[in-house]
Parts: sequence; structure tokens; C-alpha cells
Amino acid sequence: MIIILRSHATEEEIQSVVGRIKELGLTPHLSQGTEKTVIGVIGDDRIVRRENFALLPGVDEVIPILKPYKLASREFRPNDTVVDVAGSKIGGKELVVIAGPCSVESEEQLLETAARVRQAGATLLRGGAYKPRTSPYAFQGLGEDGLRLLAQAREKTGLGIVTEVMESSEVEIVADYADMLQVGARNMHNTKLLRSLSKVNKPILLKRNFSATLNEFLMSAEYLLAGGNDRVVLCERGIRTFVEYTRNTLDLNIVPAVKKLSHLPIIVDPSHGTGRQDLVLPMSRAAIAAGADGLIVEVHPNPAEAFSDGEQSLTPDKFQELMKDVRRIAAAVGRK
Amino acid sequence: MIIILRSHATEEEIQSVVGRIKELGLTPHLSQGTEKTVIGVIGDDRIVRRENFALLPGVDEVIPILKPYKLASREFRPNDTVVDVAGSKIGGKELVVIAGPCSVESEEQLLETAARVRQAGATLLRGGAYKPRTSPYAFQGLGEDGLRLLAQAREKTGLGIVTEVMESSEVEIVADYADMLQVGARNMHNTKLLRSLSKVNKPILLKRNFSATLNEFLMSAEYLLAGGNDRVVLCERGIRTFVEYTRNTLDLNIVPAVKKLSHLPIIVDPSHGTGRQDLVLPMSRAAIAAGADGLIVEVHPNPAEAFSDGEQSLTPDKFQELMKDVRRIAAAVGRK
Amino acid sequence: MIIILRSHATEEEIQSVVGRIKELGLTPHLSQGTEKTVIGVIGDDRIVRRENFALLPGVDEVIPILKPYKLASREFRPNDTVVDVAGSKIGGKELVVIAGPCSVESEEQLLETAARVRQAGATLLRGGAYKPRTSPYAFQGLGEDGLRLLAQAREKTGLGIVTEVMESSEVEIVADYADMLQVGARNMHNTKLLRSLSKVNKPILLKRNFSATLNEFLMSAEYLLAGGNDRVVLCERGIRTFVEYTRNTLDLNIVPAVKKLSHLPIIVDPSHGTGRQDLVLPMSRAAIAAGADGLIVEVHPNPAEAFSDGEQSLTPDKFQELMKDVRRIAAAVGRK
Amino acid sequence: MIIILRSHATEEEIQSVVGRIKELGLTPHLSQGTEKTVIGVIGDDRIVRRENFALLPGVDEVIPILKPYKLASREFRPNDTVVDVAGSKIGGKELVVIAGPCSVESEEQLLETAARVRQAGATLLRGGAYKPRTSPYAFQGLGEDGLRLLAQAREKTGLGIVTEVMESSEVEIVADYADMLQVGARNMHNTKLLRSLSKVNKPILLKRNFSATLNEFLMSAEYLLAGGNDRVVLCERGIRTFVEYTRNTLDLNIVPAVKKLSHLPIIVDPSHGTGRQDLVLPMSRAAIAAGADGLIVEVHPNPAEAFSDGEQSLTPDKFQELMKDVRRIAAAVGRK
Repeated sequence: MIIILRSHATEEEIQSVVGRIKELGLTPHLSQGTEKTVIGVIGDDRIVRRENFALLPGVDEVIPILKPYKLASREFRPNDTVVDVAGSKIGGKELVVIAGPCSVESEEQLLETAARVRQAGATLLRGGAYKPRTSPYAFQGLGEDGLRLLAQAREKTGLGIVTEVMESSEVEIVADYADMLQVGARNMHNTKLLRSLSKVNKPILLKRNFSATLNEFLMSAEYLLAGGNDRVVLCERGIRTFVEYTRNTLDLNIVPAVKKLSHLPIIVDPSHGTGRQDLVLPMSRAAIAAGADGLIVEVHPNPAEAFSDGEQSLTPDKFQELMKDVRRIAAAVGRK
Repeated sequence: MIIILRSHATEEEIQSVVGRIKELGLTPHLSQGTEKTVIGVIGDDRIVRRENFALLPGVDEVIPILKPYKLASREFRPNDTVVDVAGSKIGGKELVVIAGPCSVESEEQLLETAARVRQAGATLLRGGAYKPRTSPYAFQGLGEDGLRLLAQAREKTGLGIVTEVMESSEVEIVADYADMLQVGARNMHNTKLLRSLSKVNKPILLKRNFSATLNEFLMSAEYLLAGGNDRVVLCERGIRTFVEYTRNTLDLNIVPAVKKLSHLPIIVDPSHGTGRQDLVLPMSRAAIAAGADGLIVEVHPNPAEAFSDGEQSLTPDKFQELMKDVRRIAAAVGRK
Repeated sequence: MIIILRSHATEEEIQSVVGRIKELGLTPHLSQGTEKTVIGVIGDDRIVRRENFALLPGVDEVIPILKPYKLASREFRPNDTVVDVAGSKIGGKELVVIAGPCSVESEEQLLETAARVRQAGATLLRGGAYKPRTSPYAFQGLGEDGLRLLAQAREKTGLGIVTEVMESSEVEIVADYADMLQVGARNMHNTKLLRSLSKVNKPILLKRNFSATLNEFLMSAEYLLAGGNDRVVLCERGIRTFVEYTRNTLDLNIVPAVKKLSHLPIIVDPSHGTGRQDLVLPMSRAAIAAGADGLIVEVHPNPAEAFSDGEQSLTPDKFQELMKDVRRIAAAVGRK
Repeated sequence: MIIILRSHATEEEIQSVVGRIKELGLTPHLSQGTEKTVIGVIGDDRIVRRENFALLPGVDEVIPILKPYKLASREFRPNDTVVDVAGSKIGGKELVVIAGPCSVESEEQLLETAARVRQAGATLLRGGAYKPRTSPYAFQGLGEDGLRLLAQAREKTGLGIVTEVMESSEVEIVADYADMLQVGARNMHNTKLLRSLSKVNKPILLKRNFSATLNEFLMSAEYLLAGGNDRVVLCERGIRTFVEYTRNTLDLNIVPAVKKLSHLPIIVDPSHGTGRQDLVLPMSRAAIAAGADGLIVEVHPNPAEAFSDGEQSLTPDKFQELMKDVRRIAAAVGRK
């Protein structure tokens, strides 16, 4: 931690900061500049709060120098983590594509989609049974019936199941059916849910909140890792900016940034990330080219009739085209 | 709903859209412009999804014209809603100030703060027992012990209690102790929690998520109203922007906007909104001048020692000064 | 400047950074933490570029500790600067209100507006002769004819004239007519224009770009001050965020922030800041309550017929109401 | 244009809007819904201002339905525009890479960089002679001396020259030396400059302002096209968001969006877009995969010594690696 004093801090103020640092069992290190005095604090300042110093007289700014996450950092674990989800290995040389409808709507809709995405090369099936919706008047998901349909689709197609869990009280039931539990973007900051999931023996797909910084994203992963679950896959799905043409602004920059700072795998959701089916293909290609470990894509047999997110869903034919594109880019970046 | 067709939409495409509208039991209304054909849809299009039309051939854009919220709108209820919280009436002529520490830390800290804020003129006491924190290594709140301390403070001071509930499973226990239940900014989109709270017989303080639009904010209120709880107070607490000097950007513009569009009261949290104690006073004055129905302010007997949010907490002395400022502004805008 | 080394920086890497600092005539100051080594650099590091260190092997981050501006800082000049514009003193105890149409459209429109705003209490008249417009097909201003009309309005009413200059080649002609030259938000980063204006003997109204940070805003002021013109008034006029209800998000937080960090006066433009005439009054009150030194407000005798910005313009009657409100708030915060 | 009336608009109010539309020579088209009355306006409403209606009594909202740009739209010109810059064809099947230093610093620096980037496959040389800098104390460019060095580099290497022009008064001199004139991000809204450039017989590289929407970006291009210069290449270079890890947020989503809405070519600047040399390679790959027509990349023989932007500059070796990567991706998307 670096403590910067005001230009005209008195000797007394400086000594009071120094004294405070020593009280906490840490070692102060003074640098007296021509304009400012700066005090470095030696010791694990992750446990010391900025407030301990920021409000002392004479202090201008307190700058933390350690990253707030530890277990999620590449410094802690230098090698890439590979997460196995029903046989699909996310984070390895092979790219993994998760596909399926936004919401599970009916047996017919789900089974048709599952068959088609499997045929095109997806290995995991997505589908929402519990849906967080902006409007109380919108379709909220089939609940456990939806989970049962997902399990049925797995049986018929062999695809592993990825589905969202919205509350800690539902973790158990969702874990009974799913192969991977998804934390939705709106729940990335839900620490109760993260704690519950850190105790479950299933891999987690952690979506970035649409206004989360990189640090906050990795801190949510840290909740899972700190609780004992290290099968965590990150997912970029668009951030909220002033841009209005796309529903969100897919932030692919975070892909190489995560690769540098963390050992965790990261996939990309171009469907929510753009909110427009006509941008899903180019942005899927871009995601793979940027280094993503896979994709999660919304596919619906008849997007115009979808109960939710139809505007960003691909038809199965379009999804097949996407898979061809992705294979070509994957080869160009040395992946499969 | 307004459906705008592409410049060169064919007659067949136009007829297919028209047919679809009729199928749904709605009435189409065609306007053929020189460059574009526009179709108005007559009927309650809140139940019709954009997807039903956005993906039809020839369609360029679909623009909803009804506001998505109904019960929260001023059109639905023209008069201001006044919410009674343990005798404090939020939304009436009198301003209400909620004050207290970010976290309940100890009996001594809480009782001292409560006594001081009451003396200065606050009528409700805030204090977190369950805390959502970015870091798993940070203090997470005292839980039910914290609730007990809050109840004790109420007994001693007569202040009503406002405290956060983080999950639907905790609604009952928090409701047992508190006079008003707070939905934190990170939970504004938590529809499970909102549904639970819509069934509880207590007023709700609903904080705006730091990246929520006005529509989304009112839609979260709509969840509460639609479920049967109409004792809802909105709270602006800062949004996330590119600005870095303040922790968040307090968006006071939403105060008169809410007053225009909704009948619900709205208060302002200048502590989280700015993240800096030195901005709390001027922004409190500004909030009242903009028309807010009250404030929620963090106060701590010793901010430098606070377990959380110390940098934005006022000392009791500073809070007393704030109350004086607020009284003067209140008088200038014809309130008390 | 603080240089943070990577966790496993070698002794050689550390020495190379130290060597580099000495080469530049500065003094390094080492702090060896348990996890990180931190090097403080003593000396005026405003002249040293981050790049000199950021790319050296072993370096993780470089954090500047001096503010980039000097002449604009309160440390440089502790007392408030008061800028005299045709007799109106901006930055003193008295609030100054600048009012008038977005564009100068005609003699009649301008003179009527001028007479009405003067009557209501404004002391300076705004009006655009050169207009930066998003569309090449929109009205671009009357040019020098507009300037002449402004001078005529000054003669008739005694109001000082504030008008925008868009390019360094026009500085001379605009300065011939105006009492204060305005740098529009789109030109805040136009360093050529700022340099020209730093040599002119007129006060400058510098509007914040809609995506400028506080540092960038003060650095644009620094261009003016460094070139020799210290009659600078800052103006907040709304920033670009994800919010869609208002055209911009008026960021009042910057008012007390500027007051703390700089000696320069700051006024607020609630017309552009919100883009909605129905929000101009409450946000004007809020601006004054937050500590602004004045307002700049768009007024048009017939907003529905305005050539530009009609939606955010007040009628003269509404402006009169605003002045009453502002007087009450001014009194409440001890100003006139 | 669609005019939405308030819920309880009176017949008189409706008729007044209708009357106004007819006055302007346009045709109104009424749709009376159960809750709202909506009036469509038939005719080129690009020339009619929203204000004409937004402020009439009874009007709730005015929604434009025509895109504000015309010449820049794909509807106006369905085929891709290809811009020839000194023999490099931007917008065709072949990708074009522009590379070089941020600033022209010296003959040696420029010639070495030019030779190296040419060898690696770039066909155009970038380099700033006039530099817009945030700080008045920073290096502001060599001016005409810089232009001369660029011309010298062209002679030696055959590379075409791309350089920034900052003000209309400098258009002539820069056009004397350069093969393509760049409008920097800070000048995208500078309508005086755009007008001058619309009359010059050279291709223009138009960079997106860091807070420009897609509409605003295309409207700046419209200024150039409307003035008669249709050799316009767009350039995405990162937008300003809340994200702090990267200097800007490179918004690749705009690439396929521009391809859909406009006929103009678009290239990507991953150097400014990310501000970090370690992200330039992955984001260059992603840009090409998303459909960009080329790249503009900062290269410096010794980034740690660069006068500006060193942190985001590649070494010539790293640039060579980038060109290899790009070739592979280009092949995968069917380009060269």
C-alpha cells in the first residue's frame, strides 16, 4: 500500500501515519520528494483497509499495490486450469461450444435444438429453466419441469447440460440435474449464491456482470475458489456502455487480459454480448481469434417464436455455419 | 408498438407482418411513407414480444411505445405515494433522513451512532447486518446478532430500523427485526428476492443498481407492486460511468425524472453515490434541491476505524452540520 | 512516481530500473515488501514519461503521484479566482446567470430574449453565431451576422456577450465582438484552439467534454493558464453514460470536486446537461446547492420554433421562475 | 417521424399536432390505440426538427424513423466502397496494414521504423507531425519538419504516408505531403475541419471519437461525403467506458455493424484501442476475424524511449509476428 501525503503535511501528521502503520504490525518506508512525501507499507496489506489511513490528517491518497485476488491469479497458479464438464475440457487446446435455447420452452423445442446443435458440433447444451427477467409480466421459466426436459435431452443426445441457478436455495436441485451450473450476469455479485456454489461438486460458469471491472470479475471467481470449488469457467457477455446499436458492448479485450492475469479459462457469449443475431457470427470468429476457450451461443428452431431473446438467437442452420467459421479460425490460431 | 419496414420491403413482406398482427388479435395500422412503410399496432402490446415481429422478413426495427411498467407509473396513480416507516412518512411534505453506520460492528458503535444521529434529527437508523462484499476476505456482517443490536438501538432511541436483506431465504428473519427492508444495489435485479419482498408486510427501500436505466429501476419496483406490496421507496445511489474521481457518479437527474413518471417517493444516498465524505454535504444539499424526499447517509463515530465504507462515512459532528444545511435547503424548496 | 515491480523481479531487473532513474537525474527509493518491490522516484516526475519505466523488464505498474496540472491546482493558488466578465464577477459571493438562445436566429428573436432574460436577472447573454452540429444538413449559425446581432443586443440591454468560437482562425473576429469566448464541449480537447485562446485578452468559458475526466478537464484549463490567460471559468454540461432518459447525465459531483482541487470558478449548464426543459429547474436548484458559481441556461421566446435545441430551452416565463428558485437556494447556501 | 401523444391527450391537442404537420407540407397518419394515440408523419422528416412537435401540448415523445445519414448508408450505395491510397486498396479483398510510430521524432527513428514495417508487409506508413496532447507540457510534434521526414521515408521505402491534420488552416500543407489525411478521434466532431477536408483531393482516415455512437460516427463521414469527398475510410480506436484495465475499450462490434449499415470501409486501431502492447496482437487477430478491412498499428524501434504512446507501441519484431498472425486469420476469413 502506498500512502501519499498532502503537499504541506506537517512532521506531526507524517509521524502519526508512521505510528499507525507500526501499530498494525507493518513496516513503513518513507520517501520524501520535493513536493510530496510518500510512505510505502511493507506487509500483506490485503488485510489492512484503506480507511485505516485515508482519513488520517495529512493523507491525500491511498493506493493499493497488491491485486485483491490471490487464488484466481496466474501468480498463484502459473499453468492454465482446464475444467472438465461432462467430458468437454474447457481451457485446453480444444475449443468448447455450448449451444441451445435461451429458455427451455417445451420438449419438442428442446429436443429438436439439442439434436441440431449436437450434429453441428456443440458438446454442451444450454437452456434456462429458472429465468431472471426484467419484467414481472414476462415468462419466468418452467422451473423443475425445465430441468427434467434438459436431463431428457442429455439422455437422447449425450450433450452435457449447462443451466442457470438463481438462488442458493436452488443450488441443490439444479445440481441434481445439471453438469455445469451457471451464475448469470445479474448474480455475479450475489455473494450468498457464490458461497453456496463454492461448496458444490460441479463446475461453475461465471458470467461477468454487465458493469463489472476485471478486478470485480476475478473477485467473484475468488469467492468460488476460496470456498473450495476450483472448477470455474469465466464468461464475457457484454458490458453496458453509451453505445446503443448493440444491446450490450461485447468486450473482447477482457479475453487476453484474463489470460494474462489468471489461470482460469474464459469463454464468450456473443448472443447476449451483441443482442443481434446478425452480429453473432462475426463476433464469434473474433472471440476465438482473441483467444477465447469457447463460446456459448443461443440457438432456437424458430427464433421469431422464442419465449425470450429471440432477436439474438440463431437458427440451427445459421449455427452450423457458425461452427464452420469457428473451425477455420481455430485452425488459424492453432486450436481445434 | 411501431414496426418499421426496410426501404425496399415487398408487398408480400408487408402483408406477412399485417397477417401476424391480426393472428395475435391486434389491429395493424399502415402508414406508407416515401421511403419507409410503418405499421402501428393497436392493442396492449406489453404482452406481445418484439421478437414476434423483429425477425420477420422486411422488418427493420420494432419500437415499443408503451412504458413497460404500469403500476409504478404516474398515469396509473396520479397522486404521490407516501410510505409510512415506523411513523416517518416518506414522500410527503416532510423530508426523512435515514442515518447510521455502513455495518453494525458492536453494541457500543451502534448505540453511540444511533444516539448522535437521533439528536441531530434523523428519524430512521440504517445499519448492515448482512453485507454483500466484493472480497471474500472482507468482513461480511454480524448476521442475526447485528439484527438484535439494531432492535436494541430502536428500543433505546425510538428510531425505526432500516437494514438490508440479501436473499429470499432471509426475508422472514430480517422482517422480524426491521421496520423497513432494503434491497441493495447489487440485488435490484434479483427477481426471486423481489418476489419474496412483494409478499411481506413491511415497506421496502429499493436501491438503484449502479448500471440500471430508469425503466429497469421502475420495473424492479413493478415486481414489488405487482406482487402486492405498494410501500416502496426508491433510492438513487450513484451509477457507474467513466468518471474516476468519485467512486460512483451520483445521478441526481433521476430524482425529477422519477417524480414525473412515477408516484413513488425517491430518496438519495450521497455516501455511496460519491464514495467521498468531503462530497457528502454538497451533494446532500443538491439532492434536496432537486426534489428528493429524503436522504440515507452513512455515519460512524470513528470513520477511520470502520469495518467498511469508512472513506465515505461522516462523523456525528459532520452529520449534525449536514442536517443544518439540509434544513435550510428544505425551507428554500418549501419542505420541512 | 511509484514503480511497482513484478513478484519475481530479479535483482538485475531491479538494478536496471534504479539505474534508469539515476540516469534521468532523479533519486530512487526502494521498498522491499514481502511480495512486491516498490520503487519511489523523488523529483519532478511530471517531466518523466511512464513509458521510460513501464516497459522495462520486471516492471508491473507505474503509478504517477503528482497531479498532471499545476497552475490550475488549488495548491498553486489557494484563493478562489474571480473572473470579471463585463462587470459580472464569476467565482465570488454573487451567483452569475448567463442566459439566451442556443443559436442567434434573427434580430427579433435575440432582442426579445435579451430583454426578457435581463429583466429576470441574468447579467450575461449567450447565443451561438458559429454552431457545431452533428448533421451537415442542420442550421450552422449566422456567422459574423450573428456576432453583430449580439453586439446590438449588448448595446440595447447592457448585457455582456458570451459566444462560442470553434477554430483558432476565428478567435480574433469573435474576440472583437464578445465579452467572453466559449470553448464548446466538442472542442475541449482542441489544443490549437486552446493555445490561441491562451493569448487573447478575454475571459474564457471552458465547457467540459462529455467524456472528459476531471484531470482532462483541468488539463485543458492548464493549456489556457500556461499560455498566459488566467481568466478561465469552467462549465459542467453533462457527460455521456448508459442513461437514456436524459440526453446527457449532468454530473454535479464535479462541482465540489473542482472547488476542492482547483481555484477556478465553475458554473453549470442544466440545459445541455439534461436535454429536457422539464428538468432544467430542479437541476438548476441542485447545481447552486452543490456550490456552483452560476448557471448558463438556454432561453427562447418560442422553443417549439427554435432552429436548434428547442427541447431543452425554457420560455422567458419559465426562466423567470427559475431565477426565483435560484435566489431562494442561493440565500440558503449563503450566496446572492 | 412518429409522434406519441400522452394517454389523456385531448381531441384539441391531437388536432393541433395534425394541423402543424400539414402546415409543414407533410401528411399525418393517425393510429388511435387503447391507451395511446400515435401519429405517423409521411415525408422526408430529416428536414423537420423534433422540436417542432416535441413541445406541443399533449405530445409525449417524438421518435425519428429515418437514419440521419444518407450518403454514407448502404441503402444509398449498395456496393462496398474501395478507397485507393497510394496504390493500397482499402475495402477490397486484400487487407491493408498501416504501421509506424505515434510521433515522428527523428530521421533515424522514422526511417528505421519505415524500413522494418515495409519488410514485414505494411504498405502505408503512419506518423504524427502535429500531435494533440492532453498536457501542454508534453511533446507536441515536429510540425512541417515531421511532414518532410515522412516524405523522405516515402521516397526511400515506397510506403504511402498517413498523417493527422488538426485544423482546417493546416489542411493544405498536410495535403501537400501526405497520401491520406487522418482526422483524429478528438476531432471527429470538428465540423470546420470536416468541411475543409471534404474539399480536398485526398482520401481521409476518419477515427471514431471515444464517445461517439454509430450514428454520430457515420454523420461525421456524411460531412465529408456531402462536401464532395467520398474517399473515406472509417477507423475504430476504442471507446470510453467504466473499464479500467485497458486505456480504452476496443469496440469490435462496430465493425460488422458498419459493414451492414454503410458502404464505407472500416479499419481498426488496436494500439489506441487497448493502450497496451500485450493486447495488440490478440485484438488485431480479432479485428480481422470480425471483418475489418485493415489495421493501423503503432510500431517504434524502442518503445521505452518513445516520445509518446510507448506503452502501446510494438517493437518491429513483434510487428512482424503480428503480420504472420494476421495473414493466417485473413486466409481463414477468405481475405488476403
